[in-house]
Amino acid sequence: MITENIMKKLSISNEKKILLIVMDGVGDIEIDDVDTISTPLAVANKPNIDKLSRKSALGEGIPVDIGITPGSGPAHLSLFGYDPLKYDIGRGVLEAAGIGLKIKKGNIAIRGNFATIDDNGIIVDRRAGRISTEKNKELIDYLRGKIKNIEDINVEFYAGKEHRCVILLRGEGLYDNVNDTDPQKEGEKILRAKTNDSKSAKTAEICNKLSDEIISVLKSFHPTNALLMRGISNPPDLPSMNELFNLKSVCIATYPMYKGLAQIVGMDVINDLFTITEQIEMLKENYDKYDFFYFHIKKTDSYGEDGNYGGKIQVIEEFDKYFMEITDMNFDLIVITGDHSTPWRMKGHSFHTTPIMFYSKYFLRFRDNLEFNENSCQKGSIGTIYSKDLMQLMLAHTLKLLKYGA
Amino acid sequence: MITENIMKKLSISNEKKILLIVMDGVGDIEIDDVDTISTPLAVANKPNIDKLSRKSALGEGIPVDIGITPGSGPAHLSLFGYDPLKYDIGRGVLEAAGIGLKIKKGNIAIRGNFATIDDNGIIVDRRAGRISTEKNKELIDYLRGKIKNIEDINVEFYAGKEHRCVILLRGEGLYDNVNDTDPQKEGEKILRAKTNDSKSAKTAEICNKLSDEIISVLKSFHPTNALLMRGISNPPDLPSMNELFNLKSVCIATYPMYKGLAQIVGMDVINDLFTITEQIEMLKENYDKYDFFYFHIKKTDSYGEDGNYGGKIQVIEEFDKYFMEITDMNFDLIVITGDHSTPWRMKGHSFHTTPIMFYSKYFLRFRDNLEFNENSCQKGSIGTIYSKDLMQLMLAHTLKLLKYGA
Repeated sequence: MITENIMKKLSISNEKKILLIVMDGVGDIEIDDVDTISTPLAVANKPNIDKLSRKSALGEGIPVDIGITPGSGPAHLSLFGYDPLKYDIGRGVLEAAGIGLKIKKGNIAIRGNFATIDDNGIIVDRRAGRISTEKNKELIDYLRGKIKNIEDINVEFYAGKEHRCVILLRGEGLYDNVNDTDPQKEGEKILRAKTNDSKSAKTAEICNKLSDEIISVLKSFHPTNALLMRGISNPPDLPSMNELFNLKSVCIATYPMYKGLAQIVGMDVINDLFTITEQIEMLKENYDKYDFFYFHIKKTDSYGEDGNYGGKIQVIEEFDKYFMEITDMNFDLIVITGDHSTPWRMKGHSFHTTPIMFYSKYFLRFRDNLEFNENSCQKGSIGTIYSKDLMQLMLAHTLKLLKYGA
Repeated sequence: MITENIMKKLSISNEKKILLIVMDGVGDIEIDDVDTISTPLAVANKPNIDKLSRKSALGEGIPVDIGITPGSGPAHLSLFGYDPLKYDIGRGVLEAAGIGLKIKKGNIAIRGNFATIDDNGIIVDRRAGRISTEKNKELIDYLRGKIKNIEDINVEFYAGKEHRCVILLRGEGLYDNVNDTDPQKEGEKILRAKTNDSKSAKTAEICNKLSDEIISVLKSFHPTNALLMRGISNPPDLPSMNELFNLKSVCIATYPMYKGLAQIVGMDVINDLFTITEQIEMLKENYDKYDFFYFHIKKTDSYGEDGNYGGKIQVIEEFDKYFMEITDMNFDLIVITGDHSTPWRMKGHSFHTTPIMFYSKYFLRFRDNLEFNENSCQKGSIGTIYSKDLMQLMLAHTLKLLKYGA
C-alpha cells in the first residue's frame, strides 16, 4: 500500500462508478476434524452472481494480517483502503458507531456498563444483574436529567442493550490515553482513570468526576448504582475517503455499526433501511450522486455466528435473486467480498482470508471464468492480497489513479 | 526486501553471470469491455524463448505497488533492486537522463520549456508556439554563449525536442526542495522559485536569477523570450549497485533514458548502440568484464503506446530470432521481464503486473515447463512478488548472498 501522501497526489475524480458489496463474514471453511461439507458460498444456488463471477477476476483478501482474526472495525477499515494496524478504532467509538452516533474529532466515546457496588465501593456485580434494556433506558433518561456537564465538558448518555450504554464527552482538550475504570473483576473498587500523558490528564479528571457523580446520582437505584467505563477513546484521526481517494462515497447498510464505521471514514450514510429491496432502491436512487457505493449485507455473518449453515446459504441465495437488478445498473466495477470470514462451525469471526470477486468492465488482464467460492478464489488471477490494497485495485481499474513518477 | 545495510553485509562477488533482459512494457491484457484477444506475448511465435521458458520458473512482478501505474524511473529502480517509493527520481533528472546527460550527486537538473511572455511578464504561450527542434538548438547555443554561470554556480544548457530543454546546475550547496517556476497555465507571471527549507534557499535564488537573466538575454527573440523551469531536482542519493550488491554491472541499451537510469545506479553504460545485433555483439564483447548485464529492448513499449498489437508481436518475434545467440553465451541466470506493462489497448503504461521468466542453471526448486506469457506467469512457481525483490532472487540463485544470521 502506498503512503497517504502519495495517494492524495495520485487519486483523481472521474465519472466511473464503483460498487463494493460486503457480505459480512461470508467466507467459510470446508472441514472440521470429523467431516467435510462444502462452504455455504460453494453450495448456494446463485446463478446471477456466478454469471458475473465468470467474467470477473477472483482472489483472496487478508483482512488485517496472516492468521489474525479481525473485529468489524479493522476489517472494514481495510476494505475502505486504510491500514487497520495504523488506525485504531477504540471500543468506545465502535460502541457509539454501533448505535449510530456521530462522533467528531476531539470527542471522547466511552462504553459504559451499569454495575452494582456495595457500601464500601466494592464491585459486587459488573453487570448489575443484566438489567433489561427498558430499565437501562429509564436510568439513562434519569442520568440525562441530572448530569449535563462536568466542568466545561458536555456529557451525553445513550442507552444500549441490557446493561450497556455509551457516554459521549464533547469539549476542548480531550485526549484518550486513559485506562478503563472497569477492573474487569468483581470484589475490587472501581479504578481511577489515570494517564502518564499530560495531554490526556483532563480526560482522566473528567472521567473520575463523572464516575463519582453517577454514583452519587444513582445512590437510591440499588442494584444499579454505578457505571464502569471501558474503551475511553477519540475517533481515529484519519483522512476522509474524499481527501484520500477523491471519492464521493455513500453507505447503504441496514445495521447501525456499519453506518457508524462508514461515517468515520467520511461516507454519506443513508438511514432507515431495513431490507435488501430498500437497499437496492437506494442504490438506484443515488446512482448519479456518488462514485463509490458501500453495500453491506449483515445476515451472512449473523448466521455464521449462530452456527447456522442453512441460514448462511439462504442469505446468499436470497441476495442472488436481487443481483440482476444490481448488474443492470451498469456499474463500472463491482466487487463482492467479506470483511472477514465467519465460519459457521466456529460461530465467530475467524482469521481466514476472504473470497474476492472482482468485476471490472475495463482493463482486467484475464476473466477467470470460475464461479464465486472460496476454492475458485484461491486459484484466482488476483492472487492473495491484503484487503487494504483492494482499494488501489478498484481505483486503478476505474482510472482514478495517475501515474507514479515519470 | 531486506534493508540496504543488511544487503551490503550479505552480498558477495563471485564469477557467476546474471543477464536481466527488460522488454519494456511487454505485459499486456487479454480483454477489454467488448472482446478477448490473447496478449502479444501469448500469440508471438517465439520458439527459442519458450524453449528456455520451459526450463524456467515463472512469476509476476508488482512494479511499484498493487494498482499503481509506474513511470519508467520507478519501474526501473525496482528491477535494479531499489525501493521505488524510497528513491524519487525528479522530472528534471529523468529529462536529463533522457538525453544522456551525466548528473552527479549534488548537481541540479531542471526541465525547461521555452515560452512567450508579454511586456508585463505575463505568460502568453507556455510552449512558445512549439518551436522546432532546430530553432531550439540555435537558442540553446546562443544561451550557452551568454550565460555560463550564476554567482559560483556553473550553468549548462542542453536542447531537447521542440520547446523542451534541460539545464544543469553544478556547484556547491545545491538542494532541490524548490517549486517549479512554471505556473502550469497561461495568463500568469512566471513563478519565483521558493523554499521553506533553508538548505534549498541557494538553489531558489540561483533559479530566480537565472530565470531573469534568460529573459534579459532573450529580449529580442520574441516569441521565444522566456524559459519555464520544472522538476528542479538532485539525482536520488542512492548507493551504487556495486556498493549495495557487489555487482559489476553494465547497461546495454539503445535509448538515452534507460542509459541515464542505469548511470544513476552506477552501471557502466555502453554508448552508440542502435540495433539488437549491436546489443548482442556488446554482450559477447563484455561478457568477461561484468557480472550483471542489463539488456533493454524499447520497442515493445513503443508499439504498446501506439496501440499497435501487430507491432508488439513482431518485436517479440524478432528478438526471439537472436535469442539462441544469447543462450549460447552460457549465462548462469537469465531473466526476461518488463519494467511495467504497456497494454496496446490502453496506449500507455498500466498498473498490471509484469510477467517474469526466471531461468537459473542452479537451484531452481521447479521448472514450470510452461511457455512465457502472462497466463502461465500468473500460474508460475515464483508467484507474485514485488519487482524490487527480484534482485534478491537473482543474487540468491547465483550464490551471491551469504547466509543471514547463524
